[in-house]
Order: sequence, then structure tokens, then C-alpha cells
Amino acid sequence: MELLSNTICFDGEQRIYQIQSNYLKGASKVAVYMPPQALKGQKCAALFYLAGLTCTEETFIIKAHAQRLASQLGLILIAPDTSPRGQYVAQGDSWDLGQGAGFYINATQAPWSEHFQMESYIVDELYSWALETFPIQSNAIGIFGHSMGGHGALTLAWKYPHYFKSVSAFAPICAPSECPWGEKAFSHYLGDDPSVWRQHDATQLLLSKGALFDEVLIDQGLKDQFYSQLNPEKFQQACNAVGQKISLRFHEGYDHGYYFIQSFMDDHLQFHALQLQK
Amino acid sequence: MELLSNTICFDGEQRIYQIQSNYLKGASKVAVYMPPQALKGQKCAALFYLAGLTCTEETFIIKAHAQRLASQLGLILIAPDTSPRGQYVAQGDSWDLGQGAGFYINATQAPWSEHFQMESYIVDELYSWALETFPIQSNAIGIFGHSMGGHGALTLAWKYPHYFKSVSAFAPICAPSECPWGEKAFSHYLGDDPSVWRQHDATQLLLSKGALFDEVLIDQGLKDQFYSQLNPEKFQQACNAVGQKISLRFHEGYDHGYYFIQSFMDDHLQFHALQLQK
Repeated sequence: MELLSNTICFDGEQRIYQIQSNYLKGASKVAVYMPPQALKGQKCAALFYLAGLTCTEETFIIKAHAQRLASQLGLILIAPDTSPRGQYVAQGDSWDLGQGAGFYINATQAPWSEHFQMESYIVDELYSWALETFPIQSNAIGIFGHSMGGHGALTLAWKYPHYFKSVSAFAPICAPSECPWGEKAFSHYLGDDPSVWRQHDATQLLLSKGALFDEVLIDQGLKDQFYSQLNPEKFQQACNAVGQKISLRFHEGYDHGYYFIQSFMDDHLQFHALQLQK
Repeated sequence: MELLSNTICFDGEQRIYQIQSNYLKGASKVAVYMPPQALKGQKCAALFYLAGLTCTEETFIIKAHAQRLASQLGLILIAPDTSPRGQYVAQGDSWDLGQGAGFYINATQAPWSEHFQMESYIVDELYSWALETFPIQSNAIGIFGHSMGGHGALTLAWKYPHYFKSVSAFAPICAPSECPWGEKAFSHYLGDDPSVWRQHDATQLLLSKGALFDEVLIDQGLKDQFYSQLNPEKFQQACNAVGQKISLRFHEGYDHGYYFIQSFMDDHLQFHALQLQK
């Protein structure tokens, strides 16, 4: 691994690393915020943040405004890139497929399967790298994300509940099997079998695996320009069907961007801090 | 004027306008954060924020993390671009001269004098446009900025103390007559007469005009990669010489960027809110 930058921020350190990934077959960048407590060697809770389409490891650390409260609460924040990168990595025909659009799944179809193994990268490589590298309480790790990364957070939480103790999302893609973004990505990355798609669809995973968390927090803007892609109501219905407690909050006037995310970031950090203390 | 974007943020609105400037001889963008109190029509205090070299009207609103507390305190935040822009506007040979490097002064030398009239733009056009357009308490307006914009905030405050009731800065260029950035900009924009330069140098203005504010707040990182350009000690000595109260705070480990600025943004907003209430 290589430390690309390290900048003091709220008495902690905002770092960017480049690590070599066997799954992605190349280097991948990841941003890590170390709160002051972690710099002193104290074991801290940690949160993985998964960003949305077109984003990189820098989006969250510049635009989400999480460092102030993470510094106070003693939370380590880990924000990976959203896909494999590089000139040898397949690129799609548009911004919602290929580089910047990894969808946090393992592709099975050519040419994507060669590098697009984001699920295994995050849970097998990045997760253990983080545990080995930083003073993380291994029983106090949560996951959250936005849009495509909200889908990533919900699906990885339901696939790997022993890895993640808390989960929340901003405007997540809740039912990718049933929206244009998801249909496009899943058909290219996974092929056409709908039973395979369901294994990577948060609403379907919830229905098949049941209630796994004390509570899930989801914030959703009501002026979200991509509302029709997101289907929060389907996820809520699935929660109700299986008895999963959910706090789904709708916000008048808010859109899909980081001005929305920053407005409710403190609530998410406090939600995770509380869940992870249990 | 044209409203280019308007996004809900912390129950206020983050807007970007484009206004026509007679001084800049063209369109100029300006970001305005309207806290919820202003949206309800309440008269609010306002702060002008001047950004540094290479920045635009978007830098502050994305990277400085000011909206959360501005929303709570009811502060209107006004962040202009850092220079005239466009294909007919002179461009320098580097990032520290020309577009993105207006230095908040009126150029007298060709080719710069044609468009580079940032001082008059801000105090004659933008200031009155803001008062006419937004519910601003006219006796509660402050100014702050970063680096080149810190120089701008200090010099405009000392030139126009009847316009600005409070002033603060992050890592300001305190003595531009005596540092490479300032020497380059001033010689191109103002010519070679050192007596002219002194009229646009915060330390010299302070020495000639004396103490004008109850207090000045300046934050400075001790790992600032541009420390040798900034001369905070000269400004502090001038404050001591004329009896101007200053809170100059040095911060171990912090550099020149927005991770430094965001770490102390709350302190600046609270400083201004307090000064502007007097």
C-alpha cells in the first residue's frame, strides 16, 4: 500500500491510500479519515461509505462534511473508489456503466468479469486490510452509502451481516432489478437470469433473509431527480413484511446530491455510533 | 441577474447566480447561501467570503463546510468568483496571475486594467446587489477569506470600514508587497510604484489607518506549504503597533487547504455572528 496524501482535519488525519487489489487486478484508491482518538491508538468504531455513480474515493471526503462529527465521535471513515480503474479496465458506453459504476457486485459476464469484482474487493480485501492497518474495534463496524452506494451498503449488509453491525443509506437504489440503472448494470455484469439479479437486490435480499439489524436508517429527498430509480417504498414494504425496523425519512425539497447528504450526515453518524455501541 | 442553480441545504438554499458587471465588463458568478431565516424574510447578517488563487465561486460552498452553522446562526453567505472570466479576458502565464487570481484590486496597467476591477466590482456592484436582492441587515455585514482572499478581506475591510463591521481570515497574504505572489500580481496589475502597492497591502493599510475593528481573527496552519508567502507575524506586529486587537491562532500540523479551513470554519462564523450582533 502507498499513502498518497495525509492532511490534518479536525485534529484527525484525512488520508488517501492506494492499495493493490487481487480481485480488481490493479491499484485502487481509498480515503480513510482517522479521528484523533485513532491517532492516539485507541480502538475506534469504523464506517465504510460507498459512493454513487461517477464518484471516486474523493467525493465523500470533500462533499459529505462528515469529518467534524467523526472527529468528535471517534469514528474511522473508509471510503473506497466506486469501481476498478485504468486503461486496461473495460469502460461502458455511458456514465452509468463501467468505470465509476461498479455497483458493488462481482461481474460474471465478459468483458466486465475480468476486473469488476467490487463485492469481493470490499468484503475480502479492503475489510481485512482496514482491520490490519487501523485500530478498529472489530465488533463495531458499520456501512452506509449513497444512491448506487446505498444499494451497495444495503446489499453488503444483508449478504454479510457478521461483518457489519449497522447500516444506513442516503437515497439508495432499493430495488435495482426493477429500475433502469439496475437493469442496465445487472444485465451487463450478471447476465439475464432474474434469479441471479435477486441475489443482489436489497429488497429481494431482505425478503429472503429477513430482519437482521436492530434498525435501518434511510433518508430520501422528495425533489430527488432520480426518484423513479430508487423505490424506497418497496424496501419499506419489504421491511414491514419481515418485521425489520426501518426509519425511512422523506425530506421536502431536497434533491439527490451532496447538499442533501451533508444536511443529514450528522444524523447518520450518530445513528451508527449508537448502534455500534450496543 | 440569472439564478443558475438553487439547492436545498440544511433547510436553507445554496444558490449560484450570474450577474452582469460593468466593472468586469461581463458576467460573473456568485454563490449565495440563504439560511432558513432569510427564506422566511427575516433580516439576516451577511458575510462575504473571498477565495484564494485558482478558486471559483464554487470552492467555498463545496469545501468550506459553512452551511450547517450558517443555517443555525441565520447568516447569509456570499462567495464571488476570484477574477473576471472569459475568452476576451486577459490570461496570465501561470496559475497565480490573470484569471483565478484577481487579487481583489483594481488593475491600472494594460492589459489587466480592461477587466480586472475586482475591488470596485465587490464593493460597488456586488455589495449593493446583495443588499437589494436579499434580506440583509445593512449594519451587520462582515467579510472573510482565504489566502489571496484573506488579503482581499483584510484590505477591503481596512479600505471600507463603513461597509464591513467584522473581518477574519484563514492563512491570509498579510504583506503582499513583500512576497513573491504579491510582487508578481502588484507589478503586473499596478505597475512598479511601491507607494501604490502600499495602498493594497493589509499590513501597510493597518499601519496608516490604525485600529478600526473591535477584533480581528486569523487562523494559520504551521504546516502551511505557502507560509513564506503569508507573513502573519508582520500583520500581528502592525496590530500591536497601532493597538488593533487581534486573535492570531497558529495550528500545529495544519496546511493551507480546505481541510484546514473547514476545521476552524465554525469558529469564524461564530466570531462574525458575535461581532455583527454588537
